[in-house]
Formats: sequence, C-alpha cells, structure tokens
Amino acid sequence: MNPLGIHAFVWSGGSTPDDLNRSLDRSVETGYSLIEFPRLDPKKFDVPAFAKSLAAQRMGIAVTMGLSPAHDISSEDADTVAKGEAVLREAVSVARDLGATKLGGILFSAHGKYMSLPSAQGRQNSIDTLRKVARYAADAGVTLNLEIVNRFETNLLNTTAQGLQFIAEIGEPNVYLHLDTFHMNIEEANPADAIRAAGDRLGYFHVGESNRGFLGAGTIQYSPIFDALLDNGYTDTITFESFSSAVVDRDLSIITGIWRNTWDDNVALAKHARSFITDHLESAARRRKITRTP
Amino acid sequence: MNPLGIHAFVWSGGSTPDDLNRSLDRSVETGYSLIEFPRLDPKKFDVPAFAKSLAAQRMGIAVTMGLSPAHDISSEDADTVAKGEAVLREAVSVARDLGATKLGGILFSAHGKYMSLPSAQGRQNSIDTLRKVARYAADAGVTLNLEIVNRFETNLLNTTAQGLQFIAEIGEPNVYLHLDTFHMNIEEANPADAIRAAGDRLGYFHVGESNRGFLGAGTIQYSPIFDALLDNGYTDTITFESFSSAVVDRDLSIITGIWRNTWDDNVALAKHARSFITDHLESAARRRKITRTP
Amino acid sequence: MNPLGIHAFVWSGGSTPDDLNRSLDRSVETGYSLIEFPRLDPKKFDVPAFAKSLAAQRMGIAVTMGLSPAHDISSEDADTVAKGEAVLREAVSVARDLGATKLGGILFSAHGKYMSLPSAQGRQNSIDTLRKVARYAADAGVTLNLEIVNRFETNLLNTTAQGLQFIAEIGEPNVYLHLDTFHMNIEEANPADAIRAAGDRLGYFHVGESNRGFLGAGTIQYSPIFDALLDNGYTDTITFESFSSAVVDRDLSIITGIWRNTWDDNVALAKHARSFITDHLESAARRRKITRTP
Amino acid sequence: MNPLGIHAFVWSGGSTPDDLNRSLDRSVETGYSLIEFPRLDPKKFDVPAFAKSLAAQRMGIAVTMGLSPAHDISSEDADTVAKGEAVLREAVSVARDLGATKLGGILFSAHGKYMSLPSAQGRQNSIDTLRKVARYAADAGVTLNLEIVNRFETNLLNTTAQGLQFIAEIGEPNVYLHLDTFHMNIEEANPADAIRAAGDRLGYFHVGESNRGFLGAGTIQYSPIFDALLDNGYTDTITFESFSSAVVDRDLSIITGIWRNTWDDNVALAKHARSFITDHLESAARRRKITRTP
Repeated sequence: MNPLGIHAFVWSGGSTPDDLNRSLDRSVETGYSLIEFPRLDPKKFDVPAFAKSLAAQRMGIAVTMGLSPAHDISSEDADTVAKGEAVLREAVSVARDLGATKLGGILFSAHGKYMSLPSAQGRQNSIDTLRKVARYAADAGVTLNLEIVNRFETNLLNTTAQGLQFIAEIGEPNVYLHLDTFHMNIEEANPADAIRAAGDRLGYFHVGESNRGFLGAGTIQYSPIFDALLDNGYTDTITFESFSSAVVDRDLSIITGIWRNTWDDNVALAKHARSFITDHLESAARRRKITRTP
Repeated sequence: MNPLGIHAFVWSGGSTPDDLNRSLDRSVETGYSLIEFPRLDPKKFDVPAFAKSLAAQRMGIAVTMGLSPAHDISSEDADTVAKGEAVLREAVSVARDLGATKLGGILFSAHGKYMSLPSAQGRQNSIDTLRKVARYAADAGVTLNLEIVNRFETNLLNTTAQGLQFIAEIGEPNVYLHLDTFHMNIEEANPADAIRAAGDRLGYFHVGESNRGFLGAGTIQYSPIFDALLDNGYTDTITFESFSSAVVDRDLSIITGIWRNTWDDNVALAKHARSFITDHLESAARRRKITRTP
Repeated sequence: MNPLGIHAFVWSGGSTPDDLNRSLDRSVETGYSLIEFPRLDPKKFDVPAFAKSLAAQRMGIAVTMGLSPAHDISSEDADTVAKGEAVLREAVSVARDLGATKLGGILFSAHGKYMSLPSAQGRQNSIDTLRKVARYAADAGVTLNLEIVNRFETNLLNTTAQGLQFIAEIGEPNVYLHLDTFHMNIEEANPADAIRAAGDRLGYFHVGESNRGFLGAGTIQYSPIFDALLDNGYTDTITFESFSSAVVDRDLSIITGIWRNTWDDNVALAKHARSFITDHLESAARRRKITRTP
Repeated sequence: MNPLGIHAFVWSGGSTPDDLNRSLDRSVETGYSLIEFPRLDPKKFDVPAFAKSLAAQRMGIAVTMGLSPAHDISSEDADTVAKGEAVLREAVSVARDLGATKLGGILFSAHGKYMSLPSAQGRQNSIDTLRKVARYAADAGVTLNLEIVNRFETNLLNTTAQGLQFIAEIGEPNVYLHLDTFHMNIEEANPADAIRAAGDRLGYFHVGESNRGFLGAGTIQYSPIFDALLDNGYTDTITFESFSSAVVDRDLSIITGIWRNTWDDNVALAKHARSFITDHLESAARRRKITRTP
C-alpha cells in the first residue's frame, strides 16, 4: 500500500522547534509514515537535529512551499525572478538536509489570487528558472513536484494538461506533477482521467476534501480517484491535507481562505483520514480484482 | 460519433411483417441508424423483403437472442447442446440474410433464472459449441457477441472478466463481448473499468437504465461509462434498450421480470434516449479535451 | 448511532445448534449488536436455549424469511394461501420466542423468480392474509417488515411506493417496510428519495452491495443513502447482508443467484462492513452538521 | 417547468447599448426567458428604452452585482459602508426601472479575495445596511438575493447555513438566498441538502459547472441537485452562468479567475445548457414520479 503522509498544519501552524517536534510526534501516533512541512525557514530551527528526529522515528518528510509575490518566478521582472530562484534553491537545500526527496507546492508562480492574466514572458521565466533549479535539485537527490492548484491560488497551472506541457518544456527528468483532489475538484473536467493522463509524471499526491475539512464531508467522489491511482500505477506517498481555523498559520490561512472552523479535534481528524484513505485504497484493489479476475 | 441503435421491443413485442415494418419506420423517424431485433423466426416473415426494406432506409440491423432451456448449449445433455447449436447456426444465417454483421445476446446458455450452479462440463460444451458456430459465422461475415448479463438471467457469464476468459478459451477471432449498462450495474464492481478491460473484445454495447425505463431515471452513473467507451476506443454501435409492460413480448417480459409500466409513450422515450446518449457522448468528448489539452 | 446487525449467512448456511451458536459468537466478536436469522425451523433447534444465549450475550435478533411457492399467500389458490398464513404465524411465534421484535423478508409472496404477472386476486389474498398475521403479530409484540426486493425475487412489491400503498391497504399499525440497498439499486429511480418517502413506515434496513460482496466494491452510491436515513429520522437497526459461494445455504444461494465467490474471509468482511457503515453514518452526521450549522 | 435564464456574460462583457441588445437577442434566439445582467451602470445606457426592449421580447431580467472594496458594506469604516449602501440603493432602482423583481449577487460584502478574516462589526454593518436596503427594495417591488459564494470571492457568507442565519438577522421578508452550483461544489458538504435546507428562502438559482465551462464537463453531480430543487418546491428561475476567456468583462474575469478558454462558441454553449437543464428537470420529475407512485 502507498505510504501515507499528513500535512503539518493539521497539527500546528507554528514553526518553532517545539511545534515541529509535536507535529512529528502526533503524526507518528496517528499512524502516518510521512509528514509534510510547508515553508520551513532554516534560520528558525536546527535542521540537522530535526533530521535526526525524523530518522529516529523512521518518518519520511516532504517539503512544500508557495512562492510569495516578491519571489514570483513567473514575474516579468528579472530581479523578482532571481529572488525566487534563490528561494527555491534554498528550499531544495533544506529539503535535502532534512532527508526529503520531494519538494512540492506552487514552485512555478506566486501562491495567491492573481489580479492579472499570466504573460508569455512570465511563463517562460518560470520554465527557465525551474530548469536551473531542477538541475540543482537533481544533484541534491530531490525531485520538484509542481502542484496544480485552482484559479484562485495561481493563474499559471490549473490543470494536469497544463502541467504536463509545462514540465515537457522544462525538460528535466526530476520534475513531476503534484496533484491534489481539492484543486482537481474545481479545475479538472475529470479528475480520474487527469490522474491517468499524468502517467509517470505523477510525483506526489494530496487528498483533501472539497471544503478542506473531514474527508467524506464534501462533494468529492473518491472511488474513481483511487481507481485512477491504481490505473496510474502510483505507489508513492499519498498525503492528507486539511485546514481549519482551529489551527492557524496566518499567511496560509489567508491565502487559502480558511474563514471557517471545519474541525477542532485534529487527532480524530487525522485518524479518520488515515482510515478513510486506507479503506479507499483497499476498496479500489477489491474493485480491480473483481473486474479483472474471471 | 458512434452509430445509435434501438431495441425493437421499444416499438412492439410482435414479429409479424407489419410489426417489423412499423418498428423499422419508428426507428428511422426517431433518428436511429440501427434496429436490434431479438429472436427473429425466419418462418414468420419474408427475410429477403425485410432485408430490402432495411437497405432502402439505410438502416443497420443487429440480431440478438437468448437460448431457451431446450436449446441450452451449456447443458450437460448432448442432445440439448446439439439442438442449441442448430438454433445458433440458424440465427447466424438469418442475421447474414438480413444484412446484419452482429449476432448478440445470451448465446452461451439459456436465458433465464437458473436453479442450479454452472457445471464444468456444461461450460466446456458451451465453449466447444461456440467455437464451431463462430467458424460458421465467420464464413457468413457475422460476429458473435456474448452478452454478459446479471445472475438472474444466466449462471454462466455475469462479468466482463468471465467473458474475456471464456472468449479466450473459444479462441476464435470473431467472438466479442456484448456489454450492457443494466447488467453491469448489478454485477461489475466498476463498470467503467470493465469497459476499459474489455479492450478490443468489445463488440456491441447496450445502454439501459437500472430499472429498464427512461435513461436518467435510475441509479446508473453514466458519465464514467461514456468516458470509458472513449478510453476503450469503441466507435461501433450503441443501442438503447428499455422494457415496459406497455409493450409486451410475453416470453421476454417474463424472463426479464417486466411487471411494471415504466413508460407509455415510446416515441418520447426513443427521442429522449437518442438525445441523452448523444449528449453523454459529446460531454465525454468535452471532458477528454479539457483533461488532455494544455 | 443506529444498532448494527449482520445476516447469519455471512457465517454459515447451516442451522444446527452449533451453526447458530458459532454465528452468534462471530457476530459478537466482530462488534455487531444484532444477528439476523433467515428461515429458522423451530423443530431443528432448542428455541428457549438459543433465546437464552442471545440474552446472555445482550444480542438482538431479527428473523427474516421468504415464502416458498407452496406457501405463497399471493397465490390465487386458497389452500396455498392458508398454508402460507400458517407458516407466517409460526414464524411470528418463533421470532417472539427468540426475543425478536421484527419479522422481515418477503412475507407477501413467494421468494423467487415468478414466471407470471401478479394477479389482482393474489395481491388481495396477500393483503388480507397479512392483515390477520399482523394482528397475531401485534399480540406477540412483533412487527412485520415487508422487504421490497428486485423483480427477479418477487413480482409483487419491487418499489417503496408499491410497498407503502400495500401497507396502507393492510391497514395495521405494526406493518412496516424493510428496505435494502441491493434491491433499491435495481428498482428505485432514486433510493435516497425512496428512503425519505418511506417516512415512519421504515421498519428495518439492509445494507448490501450491488453484487452482494464487500461494501464499496460495487456500484452503489452510499452517501446519499446514509444522508436519507438521517433525513428519515431512522434510528433503528441497520443490518449488513452479503452472500458468497464460500458460505452456502443451498436454497437461498440458488434463489439469489450466488454463482460466484465474492469473498472467502468472512471475519474480514464483517469487520470491514461494520467499519464502513459506521464511517458512513458518521460522515452523514458531519455533512448534516456543516450544512445546517451557520 | 422553471423559467430558464442566462447570464449576459455568455454573450458579451461589454455594456454599451449595442452589447445589451445583442445579448438580449441571442438569449431570445437560444430559447431563454430571462437574462441576467451584472453591474449595470444607468449612466451608460438608456434604461427606459432597454426596459421596453425587454418587455417587447417578453423577456425577464435579473440584475446581479458584487460590491467593490470601496463600497464594501461589511467594512468597519462607516464611510465605505455608506457608499456601499448608496450603490445598493441605486442598483435596486435600476433593477426596478428595468422591470426586474430580483437583485442578486454579492450584496453583503466586496466581491473578491479577502486578505483578512471577517469582523463582527463588519458583519453587523452589513446586516444593518441590508435591512435598510431591503425596505427600500420592498417599496420598489424588488427582492434581495444574497449569493452564497466560495471562500475566494468573499469571506462572509460561504454556506447556505451562514446565509440563512444572516437573513434571519436582517429580518426582512424580501431577502432571499441566491444559490449557485459552482460555489456549492466548493463549500457545501452536501449541496442537495443545502438546497432543501434553504426552504422558502431560496430566491434565485445559478447553474454553473465546477470549472465554469460547459455543463456536464466538470465534477458536479447534477441529479441530486435537481432532485433537491424539486424537494424544495422551487419553481422560480434557474439561470445558467459560464465564463470563458473568449468573452471578457475584465473586472469580473480577474475576480473570478478566468484564465482559460473553456469555450469559443457561445451559441452552442447556450443551446446545450438549455437542453441540459431542461433534461435534468424532466429526469428529476420522472424519478420523483417513479419513487412516489405505486
């Protein structure tokens, strides 16, 4: 079965060493084998010590991030692009130092609501920058996983098809798609087919409900999605992501529009998600067996 | 777009020349390009004349049937099997003489509720018989399309996977699967995946609602099915099937349990079905385009 | 949360005292609070002793049955109807003696594939007989729960609407509907709406997959069904039913067309079903809370 | 059947008299009986003349709008609130003068991505302002319909339950909910249940696909939604809304994140939507009839 991960903001929006360690402990206790940390600032915690903690608990880690407007590599401004490249290189280094093999998220543009259409020059800047970062990441043993997000969180890559084309233009072997059920529910005509279309470029996968809360308490049809992961042959990590105003990272809450409290008890939430994803993986395998066995 | 067919019992359960001609006319008027006739008895009507009518109207024809217990080629009784083989050969001949290229339906066993489990010997008899009939059909330019039906209408082939294995054992190139949404809704764990699994062995396709009435007035989820037909690359005929106690062929009504009146106005039904299937094919194409085009 | 029950044929098709006790123990071990026994013959086991075992384990019991053609109260033959009435009265007595408050199943006709349409006289015979049996059952503290089943298992009551009308004609307060997701998937245009329409006449509820196997490995959309149970206000028992050729009661297997092995490990099956139903009940409650709480 | 409306931005993002008249003509030609115009500026066109054109074509009109940040009545700044009130009053007057009986949209806050959480004071300002505007609208024979939109387009009212509570606090009889399938797909745990919960407060309804394109080419499950409209008893207008970069109103395109071209042929789009909605209404009626008729 796929390794299961959990987004750290289920546990805490903070990034003090204590926050990190508590998040790690909770993830272990609720049965996950990977924790995803967004926007880790290496100046704020002891990277080697935390890497040791992760290894001691045999926990995987994925690092994700979204660029800020000041570091937007899809900008037409060379200086902004250069700053973005530096941020991405640093993120690759932190990921590597923590033992992560995946850097995911909105690596290709700012994360947020754009008030303008994407430009051809900005798109090319993003591609050219990511090509360089990908080479750097390759040396670090890290893959780049471009998260395809909805129209309110980027103007550049909203669909799998756009992402595949973009990756082809980057032309580096260690650049993959990071797909997410929450975003696909808004943008894809057929999320299952998008997962199949992603093929071997699918590098990381988020399961999140349509309203960001408990899995199964929204509008997403999960069975076709898990069938498609099986069709795709994806055996890598599936990470649960959920946001509530009960746990707040101010920046990410604002960007992602978390105005409501969809849960309070994050331990119950995390256990439920693990059980939900596991059952859906097992049910997909059962459907496959019945459909393919005489 | 796929040619669309309609089952003659939407129009009439009778098989007088008048019944056949009226059914043909109605099918043309409501915009179909193929009519499916079940259980045509060549002694009861003028085959060459009807073939001429079909050709004059540029209408395709498919012939379907279900064996009776007295002609059950999955029987362990050699005489019954021999009678069944004769019936199948005759059906092939009638199909050929009418200009049909497809013989479909429950060709491999009796059509009805079995009161015993299938036997290995009976299954082998069916395979061996169909091998011979398939060769005869090949000379006639006719394909055999084995209809996978629910557990109450045969005990032998209830799933696509069983059908594929069975066809492999027959080993003749002109034997295909005849799939049907009504039956898949009961038996398949995942109808869409079954359609993809059928691959190039999918020879004929029935669209029927879960309760045999108007399309869209039941429990079947059609979008994944039409997506799967696109995945499969199936470009051949899709035939609409619906039964109501308003139009009765006594035998078939009893076997298929048509105790209720799900519609009275068969012209409205037929027009709706054509529009429904056309829209679902077009929507599937739109979803595909969005999912696969950057 | 609703009490959860399990059909005894998950455990054994036999009805020796040993079979019954083993089935009871397994049901307790896998976390159910009620066991459903079909067709209990009081001559074959010690009813008071088994009632004591049930009470000792604090387990509920429901008794279900389907009439045989020889006891079909929807027959036009007075003698057959009288025999059926006797069988039903005996079933009520056995249910009472076992401590059951519900008798369910196909109480209104034979259980099986009819080869004729229902008749007005037979329907009236069934109503008149059930009125008498209902009064007898009222004295025994037992409710009658008419199971609405698919067209291949009765010709009389295939939909909730038919059942409600039938119950109105019986006119006794202790006659209810016994609904079942497997059957609704075939017959109802909208299973969720049927559950809402059942209102306070919903007396017993079966959850079974479209192909009779593991829940979630078929075509049924469960979320709207559990939402509708909440809408209905149904707080009574929900019983899991599944058949596989791995566990055989010959008669029921034949009638229900169990030709395939959909599972071998009944302990895994039972545990999964309990978890599946529990999660769907909890998810429905979560959806309700989000939808109804500002 | 419900009257069907169409959003003017299917035809044109412009608001010159020519734009308005062309949009009106196209709506009539494609078979709609109402046109929805967003953000009509009475200084830019001849209101009485256009009202006459509408009446001559027997076309209904609905006016919708979203407040700008400078007119945000959920602001804590009294001056901004006052400006917003003036804008709303003017919109009521324009609606009245055009013969509209409904003013819909994001009337309660700015339309756009907030970068802060809603405040209690701002919420109260919005309620108090809308109470006054509602009284003014009552005199004009106009209802206010508060559009519940997703988290990226307001921070104040994202769910039906929030809207109902808000309307209760306003306390005026002519304030209703304006629900929209696109937004419900993101925010509601159960869109169908939300529609039922809306009860007689449902005043206006938008049908839009999950990705804003062709109906049926996204992730929304429409059947439960149309069943719920029937459950609700809603017989008023259903308006189709779709945005593509092929037709641009710059402001609304930016706010709603229309970065992609989901269609070019708006006539084909409009005809399809009318047929799609009509078929879904008819199918819901058929399901209802089967479910409720013995």
